[in-house]
Amino acid sequence: MRGVKVSLFGFGNVGKAVARVLLEKERFFRERYGIALKVVSVADTSGVVWLPEGIDLQEVLLVKETFGKLSAWTNDYEVYNFTPEEAVEDIDADIVIDVTNDRNAWGWHLAALREGKAVVTSNKPPLAFHYAELVGEAEKRDVPYLFEATVMAGTPVIGILRENLLGDTVRRIEAVLNATTTFILSRMEQGRTFEEALKEAQSLGIAERDPSGDVLGIDAGYKATILHCVAFGPITFREAMVKGIDGISQEKVKEARSRDRTVRLVAVVEKGKVIVEPREVSLDSPLAVESHENAAVIKTDLLGELAIKGAGAGLKETASGVVSDVIKAALRIA
Amino acid sequence: MRGVKVSLFGFGNVGKAVARVLLEKERFFRERYGIALKVVSVADTSGVVWLPEGIDLQEVLLVKETFGKLSAWTNDYEVYNFTPEEAVEDIDADIVIDVTNDRNAWGWHLAALREGKAVVTSNKPPLAFHYAELVGEAEKRDVPYLFEATVMAGTPVIGILRENLLGDTVRRIEAVLNATTTFILSRMEQGRTFEEALKEAQSLGIAERDPSGDVLGIDAGYKATILHCVAFGPITFREAMVKGIDGISQEKVKEARSRDRTVRLVAVVEKGKVIVEPREVSLDSPLAVESHENAAVIKTDLLGELAIKGAGAGLKETASGVVSDVIKAALRIA
Repeated sequence: MRGVKVSLFGFGNVGKAVARVLLEKERFFRERYGIALKVVSVADTSGVVWLPEGIDLQEVLLVKETFGKLSAWTNDYEVYNFTPEEAVEDIDADIVIDVTNDRNAWGWHLAALREGKAVVTSNKPPLAFHYAELVGEAEKRDVPYLFEATVMAGTPVIGILRENLLGDTVRRIEAVLNATTTFILSRMEQGRTFEEALKEAQSLGIAERDPSGDVLGIDAGYKATILHCVAFGPITFREAMVKGIDGISQEKVKEARSRDRTVRLVAVVEKGKVIVEPREVSLDSPLAVESHENAAVIKTDLLGELAIKGAGAGLKETASGVVSDVIKAALRIA
Repeated sequence: MRGVKVSLFGFGNVGKAVARVLLEKERFFRERYGIALKVVSVADTSGVVWLPEGIDLQEVLLVKETFGKLSAWTNDYEVYNFTPEEAVEDIDADIVIDVTNDRNAWGWHLAALREGKAVVTSNKPPLAFHYAELVGEAEKRDVPYLFEATVMAGTPVIGILRENLLGDTVRRIEAVLNATTTFILSRMEQGRTFEEALKEAQSLGIAERDPSGDVLGIDAGYKATILHCVAFGPITFREAMVKGIDGISQEKVKEARSRDRTVRLVAVVEKGKVIVEPREVSLDSPLAVESHENAAVIKTDLLGELAIKGAGAGLKETASGVVSDVIKAALRIA
């Protein structure tokens, strides 16, 4: 049995979902992979709980759910006021998990890699702006830097492009990478205005209070940028051409439907080119997704066309990608 | 640059397609992966061409296409009469590629693994009957044993199940894994009888002269057995319940279509259970494939439902899977 020490950064909904999977499937991971994961620290914005012998995940989940923040926990554990940089340097761990929304996390990702720690992340901006430095540093040090959950949640489109199809040359990727815009566009097809559909998405918790990241195509743009980096080499979000769904009229959406087509926020990725914009797709295309599904169509020289479709959002679904990467990293470093 | 020595067994249509990809993309593999592949032997049923310094692939392809067999090649190269067992033992190579149809190849796969050689194969019976011994031997010796191209050609369903979704527990796989039966069933929907559709498939080279492997579900059964091994642990084809499409009437197929459903040869794989039989699927299901596409729907505890669709047959498409595995093996052993 290989013991692997894990530092978890981010303890919102995704972080809690990851902790729950690590807790509930601990025996499965021991039996199937011979890996015993030990979470030595958990951090939210209020503080860092750190216990080198391993934190009781059931307890830390209970504290978070009861008090809303880790700093309220004063009984058995010390809560530290580390910055993430300090934490990745001071806390002895094999794998650092970043499931925060910290836009500046690339700095402490780099710090972790320089310490020889594997990094697993669902956090998009570090990759969308600093892919070359991060992956370069990881390769130089031969340390895993894994980010399956940044694109299409746990649906393994990154794994397919990064570790499979190794003999193929990718020509083009078309994908629907944002579920909130799919929800809004579906509702508009059913007769709602953009504003009504957005309000409904917000009241259901599908869109955030500030929906601009989804609606303006920024979230899809980050993801498309990451797909470009993996399939064609480094590029940054600044070079992506992104147009959101905010300018789309209900008439246009309904009219497309009357021609057996549907408007989706589509990402098109080719060498040197990242485009995100609303496009019509045929109803029998894999890109005509509904609900929280994402889809990608990958075109290559040998295989031709490959379509993958699966969850693009959701807590368990995102935890799926994070935890798969944690196991992958654990198997590589052990 | 890492030099990697390759022994190629099987030089029919798939073997030639693999050689062509290795030849045409040699520079791509050097630049992208830092790997220089050197083919030190090529074997067909007539003999083994062996040159430790590396065989000129352009020449060997020309000889094969001109004379139909390697033993006709008497100019620059020696042609040996090795059995595959002798060849894998005597020829110094890092990776053994088996793209033969040799039903008894598991014996020399084992011999190669015991010599510490990686094995890459598109040959199904060794896996469908001897998965546990073969993968067990490879794991014991920490040598890659890779077989992406045995199921869905280069469409990376094996890679997804074996090296991704590592945190998920697979509950069930449903898949359409044989393109010949899809062709025949599509033609029957259009009004042909089974016999007419089969004859057409044979005249187009889609079905073999002895079509029983496809029509009786044996090919799909092998593939479904391999999916079970990867997702749920070892099982053999003998335990699979397989029913072909030979008993299907044109009326049944056409009648299903009138209800927006289509009959396909569907594999259903659950823990301890492998079933292949004609089933009706809804026209909007990912399993309602056409032409040479295969599809698989993987259901898991965390991710929910994941669908992958892509080429399931074809020469370049099969070479895609074989060559991806060759690169994967080369990256691991170097």
